[in-house]
Amino acid sequence: MRSLVRILALAGALAAAAALAGTGPPDEGTPYLQAVDRMRSIGLAEEKAHDFLARITAVGPRLTGSAQADRAVEVCLRMMEELGFDDVHPEPVTVVRWVRGTIEQAALIGSRGAGDVPLTVCALGGSVATPPEGLLAPVIEVRSFEELARRAREAEGKIVFYNRPMDRAQLDPFGAYGRAADQRVRGPAEAARYGAVGAVVRSLTFRVDDHPHTGVTQYDEGRARIPAAAVSTAGAELLSRRLKEDPTLRLKLRLDCRTEGPVASANVVGQITGRELPREVVLVGGHLDSWDLGTGAHDDGAGCAASIEALRLIKAAGLRPRRTIRAVLFMDEEFGGTGGRAYAAAPQRKGERHVFAAESDRGGFLPIGLAVGGGSREATERIRSFEDLFRPLGIQFIVPGGGGVDIGPIVERGAVPAAVILNSQTYFDVHHAALDVLSSVHPRELELQAVVLAALAYLVAQEGFGPGKP
Amino acid sequence: MRSLVRILALAGALAAAAALAGTGPPDEGTPYLQAVDRMRSIGLAEEKAHDFLARITAVGPRLTGSAQADRAVEVCLRMMEELGFDDVHPEPVTVVRWVRGTIEQAALIGSRGAGDVPLTVCALGGSVATPPEGLLAPVIEVRSFEELARRAREAEGKIVFYNRPMDRAQLDPFGAYGRAADQRVRGPAEAARYGAVGAVVRSLTFRVDDHPHTGVTQYDEGRARIPAAAVSTAGAELLSRRLKEDPTLRLKLRLDCRTEGPVASANVVGQITGRELPREVVLVGGHLDSWDLGTGAHDDGAGCAASIEALRLIKAAGLRPRRTIRAVLFMDEEFGGTGGRAYAAAPQRKGERHVFAAESDRGGFLPIGLAVGGGSREATERIRSFEDLFRPLGIQFIVPGGGGVDIGPIVERGAVPAAVILNSQTYFDVHHAALDVLSSVHPRELELQAVVLAALAYLVAQEGFGPGKP
Repeated sequence: MRSLVRILALAGALAAAAALAGTGPPDEGTPYLQAVDRMRSIGLAEEKAHDFLARITAVGPRLTGSAQADRAVEVCLRMMEELGFDDVHPEPVTVVRWVRGTIEQAALIGSRGAGDVPLTVCALGGSVATPPEGLLAPVIEVRSFEELARRAREAEGKIVFYNRPMDRAQLDPFGAYGRAADQRVRGPAEAARYGAVGAVVRSLTFRVDDHPHTGVTQYDEGRARIPAAAVSTAGAELLSRRLKEDPTLRLKLRLDCRTEGPVASANVVGQITGRELPREVVLVGGHLDSWDLGTGAHDDGAGCAASIEALRLIKAAGLRPRRTIRAVLFMDEEFGGTGGRAYAAAPQRKGERHVFAAESDRGGFLPIGLAVGGGSREATERIRSFEDLFRPLGIQFIVPGGGGVDIGPIVERGAVPAAVILNSQTYFDVHHAALDVLSSVHPRELELQAVVLAALAYLVAQEGFGPGKP
Repeated sequence: MRSLVRILALAGALAAAAALAGTGPPDEGTPYLQAVDRMRSIGLAEEKAHDFLARITAVGPRLTGSAQADRAVEVCLRMMEELGFDDVHPEPVTVVRWVRGTIEQAALIGSRGAGDVPLTVCALGGSVATPPEGLLAPVIEVRSFEELARRAREAEGKIVFYNRPMDRAQLDPFGAYGRAADQRVRGPAEAARYGAVGAVVRSLTFRVDDHPHTGVTQYDEGRARIPAAAVSTAGAELLSRRLKEDPTLRLKLRLDCRTEGPVASANVVGQITGRELPREVVLVGGHLDSWDLGTGAHDDGAGCAASIEALRLIKAAGLRPRRTIRAVLFMDEEFGGTGGRAYAAAPQRKGERHVFAAESDRGGFLPIGLAVGGGSREATERIRSFEDLFRPLGIQFIVPGGGGVDIGPIVERGAVPAAVILNSQTYFDVHHAALDVLSSVHPRELELQAVVLAALAYLVAQEGFGPGKP
């Protein structure tokens, strides 16, 4: 098996060497290195991705099902039309609309006569409201579900406070996030199992500051739904300290968020139609919905803007890909990916074959690597045989992986997944928080992502993947 | 020759594999991987480098020869003492003090009755003043010295305006800087050759904004010294546009900067004395002086803070290096490196052998690679044989190179040069400008640089370089 992979990789490398050297892909006059060089020059000189991002974030926060999300659909359709993309259209998605409301309050009520101390909180996405007068209950602080299970009896009638920090000692912030996010996603449901009346979760960031970070929480069907909030990391440290001094203190929590039920929304689709194999599709995309505390600049306006700019660069460089290169801006990633499922199931997919799908949902930071091929070593090696194309764009490694919530359903149907790996050391500073705004995205770093996406999409649109191709 | 390099690299790799696997360096109980892992955990959890940077930048701008530069020497000596470094001391450097003054004004004076239009400028380091009433002269815009030479006769009596932008299409910002910096460093001297009365240079940044970026300019001995200023990029675009409309417009320039002559200053030195070979020195360092528009956080408070933190991490991890690991904070890099020369020539260097010298003068951004060995492939390959140590710190490549202004003199005496390569895509946004302040340096990214430096310095302090070692 390994030797087969190597032979395939070698064959790919030889073909790649020929193409890079200037003989070029069989039916397209521009050698790849020259094509990529042209796109890099145009992209870095013009930095249009940030302009597109500015138009997307100018709409405001784009919470699934909101009026701003609708407006963002219109804005992006118009941008794609202006840029001369082919077959620009929305595709319907039915989403559940959750509304944050206007009240998000928390305060420590000490038992020793000290005044109330406010804590900075925000409702978690999907949370139910507290009673209008608020919830007042003692607090149990835990670091894990195991600890909560051990102390199950203490939880009844209390607010469970999850306070396990993202582990800063880990190099990979996504890894550290992944090992802490269970508290937010499943914590309130777990707390409800033990009779807790509310849940407060330490914000998922390495920083200690006073910005709460929201994100989705998932209740269990058929169990109590308890109000759930994120507390800023500074607030979490304060609460923890006060609880040590005064274990009987109570937390007052007031939220008026609510779920309003299904509403009509849309994915946004535009493309450069392939001149030889128009039904074979190379997809680049991100999600158009965002959280509502900032304007979703990194998450995921950046992925949308980079995807649009990738197509613009291919056109601006005068390239005419053999296969279709399509930008898809998915709706409703943050609440679970209905947009991705709707896209894969849409009637337009009949007769199309998705060769490749790159999801950009890691912010607008410096690209440093590529994750390609999911679990397919052959696919990774194939792209790796073209690494000389990506190195002049700052890509230092090409590893197995890729994929994401939105492209999951289309990858299940055979598309090779990919993602551009970015410097994510500062991502969780802003992720799902009020700090995620346009000024936090650097025009040049975002542009580089668009150039890498353009190079990758164009390469695959020329070379293909699939039956008869490793 | 190539095969020798490979054999050496292979031998190094085998030795490295043994050390990494846990047998460890011969006389030190801690295997390298474990040592690095410990330093990474401590460093990222505590993020002390940023605290050190905060103390350095709190002094204010640290222009060579200024009172703040003196104060920074004191602050850093005290920090090193507090951290328990060995042999903490200043070493004298005589520097030339240049003073910016308080007047930096420029305005377009149109010939067509329009009002004066102010331009945002700053004096270049080393510039002479204008007459007190200012300089008023027509302007010739050029993009290169070649163009200036061709149009030599037009320059007489005018202000030469150098307006060649840093080329954004280049991936490497240092490369783009290098290809534009001649205008600032040599432009005023070149202009003076042709009888110009002043020089204005477009600021060296990719961004178009209203922050002027200063930096040193060098006059020719025995030729006229003309006042020299940097204009913001937005100002440069405006000036260029107006010149096209009105080629006879005049520029008014007022500067009251001056050079005050030699003053006493110092490098700051502290170390962990090697327990076996105390006279063999592994140097890590940056420069303590800075420009004066911001507080020199990236340039080069970051390099100083990372060097101090590297030594702290080695101590905090309980490591006792065989050779001496020394932090040197050099004075006067920005005006030409007298600190580096004074260090190499100091009487204390007698009887010492500098094995290795890593200069950190690329800001406080994410580390992505190492440049090691200067032109010695053997040295590069030797460190590369330990790449598994650096990969868990995010180091993606190890290439030939390294070196810098401050370590130049000690490298000439045989030290192997090195530098941590950082993401520099945003460096020139802040470089030499008012934006170079503490808040522009991210604690985690700076800390990673310190951890990489610590790992590199410790490795070399254990393994050595030099006679009998490739």
